[in-house]
Amino acid sequence: MHPEVVAKAEDARAAAAVLAAVSTEAKNRALRLIAGALKEQSGKIIEANARDLEEYRQSPGYSKALDDRLLLNEERIAGAADGLLEIAALDDPIGEVTGATLRPSGLQVGQVRTPMGVVGIIYEARPNVTVDAAGLTLKSGNAVILRGGSEALQSNICLVRIIQEQLREAGLPEAAVQLIEDIDRAAARTLMRLTGLVDLLIPRGGPALIKTVLENATIPVIQTGAGNCHLYVDEGAAKEMAVEIAFNAKVQRPGVCNAIETLLIHEAAAEEILPAALERLAQAGVELRGCPRARRFHEAVQEAVEEDWGNEYLEMILAVKVVDSFDEAVAHINRYGTMHSEAIVTADYERARLFLSRVDAAAVYVNASTRFTDGAEFGLGAEMGISTQKLHVRGPMGLKALTSLKYIVYGSGQIR
Amino acid sequence: MHPEVVAKAEDARAAAAVLAAVSTEAKNRALRLIAGALKEQSGKIIEANARDLEEYRQSPGYSKALDDRLLLNEERIAGAADGLLEIAALDDPIGEVTGATLRPSGLQVGQVRTPMGVVGIIYEARPNVTVDAAGLTLKSGNAVILRGGSEALQSNICLVRIIQEQLREAGLPEAAVQLIEDIDRAAARTLMRLTGLVDLLIPRGGPALIKTVLENATIPVIQTGAGNCHLYVDEGAAKEMAVEIAFNAKVQRPGVCNAIETLLIHEAAAEEILPAALERLAQAGVELRGCPRARRFHEAVQEAVEEDWGNEYLEMILAVKVVDSFDEAVAHINRYGTMHSEAIVTADYERARLFLSRVDAAAVYVNASTRFTDGAEFGLGAEMGISTQKLHVRGPMGLKALTSLKYIVYGSGQIR
Repeated sequence: MHPEVVAKAEDARAAAAVLAAVSTEAKNRALRLIAGALKEQSGKIIEANARDLEEYRQSPGYSKALDDRLLLNEERIAGAADGLLEIAALDDPIGEVTGATLRPSGLQVGQVRTPMGVVGIIYEARPNVTVDAAGLTLKSGNAVILRGGSEALQSNICLVRIIQEQLREAGLPEAAVQLIEDIDRAAARTLMRLTGLVDLLIPRGGPALIKTVLENATIPVIQTGAGNCHLYVDEGAAKEMAVEIAFNAKVQRPGVCNAIETLLIHEAAAEEILPAALERLAQAGVELRGCPRARRFHEAVQEAVEEDWGNEYLEMILAVKVVDSFDEAVAHINRYGTMHSEAIVTADYERARLFLSRVDAAAVYVNASTRFTDGAEFGLGAEMGISTQKLHVRGPMGLKALTSLKYIVYGSGQIR
Repeated sequence: MHPEVVAKAEDARAAAAVLAAVSTEAKNRALRLIAGALKEQSGKIIEANARDLEEYRQSPGYSKALDDRLLLNEERIAGAADGLLEIAALDDPIGEVTGATLRPSGLQVGQVRTPMGVVGIIYEARPNVTVDAAGLTLKSGNAVILRGGSEALQSNICLVRIIQEQLREAGLPEAAVQLIEDIDRAAARTLMRLTGLVDLLIPRGGPALIKTVLENATIPVIQTGAGNCHLYVDEGAAKEMAVEIAFNAKVQRPGVCNAIETLLIHEAAAEEILPAALERLAQAGVELRGCPRARRFHEAVQEAVEEDWGNEYLEMILAVKVVDSFDEAVAHINRYGTMHSEAIVTADYERARLFLSRVDAAAVYVNASTRFTDGAEFGLGAEMGISTQKLHVRGPMGLKALTSLKYIVYGSGQIR
């Protein structure tokens, strides 16, 4: 066990006990103070971030995409600060009492919504996750232990220092938001195994990170992010709608988890719709990989191999498959999908209904782009990632996903 | 990976896809058929159970308590069968739509309650868990993979065979309920690691089993059962109520998880209440282990050591501690408790309120025995154990705990 991490978790536990009883107004005041301080001290943040960038640009594994995710500028800092103000404006989930009943024993039994307690978050390069995660956990009354990517260490240290100063200013415990500064893997591994000290661990990042957490964690985990999403164009689908949704779901932002990776189309719709859809995608620069039948509809389509069906490209590549039936499409999705977001374009009422019930995913769509799977679009406000497991919460995780329900029982001397 | 377990999980996955769409009436009919067959074939079950008992009675680790848990007789089989009829009478949780809203995008977003999919259950000796678990998972539309204790193997094989015959009779897939017959640990370990095939794992048993599962599982787990529960008697508590609740919570059934293991009492209440409470407990044969101050109130109280505060005795032993204050009692509970069931006896309104909010446990009581933490007592009907974690569900797990919420989205061509 890594001593820095254990000590921080013990401090977090103590902070969580205080936070659970803090008023909504006190939490909102802290969020507003932090937002103000981030904007005011943006120069300092950008300086720390520049040190991260400088070091990262000399590293052997350099990638332009990660460089962009790592970058903080005035605009992004203001965006993160505004995100905190939005969180302050959300309803406080804590304290809601549900399902109170009077039992035959005479006991009044109800459930009250409480914070989880201590939440651990392991994430990769983007330093704005530091601010989002601190805001969401604070508003939901949780203490958080952050373990960001090593590339963003200086940025994260600077951000957490500012957050802690404002927590102190607001009269809240500094240990409500802590950063693990040791970038060694042993530190992360300890965080994954603090049964009794950390109530929930959320990994946010690529498949390798998620796998490491699932392999090593002994505390409860919410799996997030993996999105091998599909669009299925049904027999009789409206051509223009199918082309527009396929294009939007792949091209509007290909690097995110709710973008599609495979287009499935019923053989009876292929002739009419596939040439136009593939032409539109190819024109936009999408690399197409298809089954033999799909290849007949556009010269740009290369041959797909088995791995293509299971691949989350997260870039301008799309797998395309012509299927014989609705059932084949559903079976393909349930076999290769990651239970994230799945869509059908159809004009048929019964197949719309069947798709919604048979496809096993966090969000299932009829006649809309998978790109809508998002906390704000679903009405949850800000989100802490998208859960792809079924335990506790599926889909976008808002404030409620960071809470639990505790039974409270009012008696008058009852015994059994 | 153990091939028998992987094959059964694949069959379970296919069965789960069918079960998710089965009507309530079809599930209830299967439950009633199974209940009838269990009663009818009780002779066969008792015979199989006798083989288990005979073998167990020759094993070196023999214990009378486990012998009793292992035993099946006409009465217990009828009880398990009646439990299935009760499950048939419960509302079907599947298909409920909640929180449907029309978003600014024009999308209608709702959540529908679905089965988890495939549930794994690892448990110890009691063969009636086989029947309960099959009933609860079937009613909630899940396929289940059971891994019972080796001592109950013949009983479990016989029970599952009867259940599968009746599933077939009811036109449901046999693979809805399967038993892992290989008692080797490798089989259980494979079950803990079937990411993508098993959606949820519930261990039911002692601390060693729970620990093994937490250490080895890569799939989502619900921790159950550990119950180091406390009763705190506050300053000014009514003497008779305090004595009755302390006695009931310890003595009525000391071997279960919601029985108390420690009695805490405010120093200002000790003089009046402790002698009577300890006398009543000692008379009933409870071994008492106390702090130095508690020992002054009754001669039967032996000296407690640090380990006593963290021990879940599950027998007729009680730790007793006199505390200086309400705050010390809450701190003691939050430090040593297992977040199961915790109770206060008090006449003070504000301390009742504070106890409910500050004590971090699945069920927190004012003026009642902790023994009420139970699915039936809380109005959930039958239960699948008691969760002591905060993720997904706390406290008794009824049918709803075996379900998940999936987002369904109705569009008319929306893109982002």
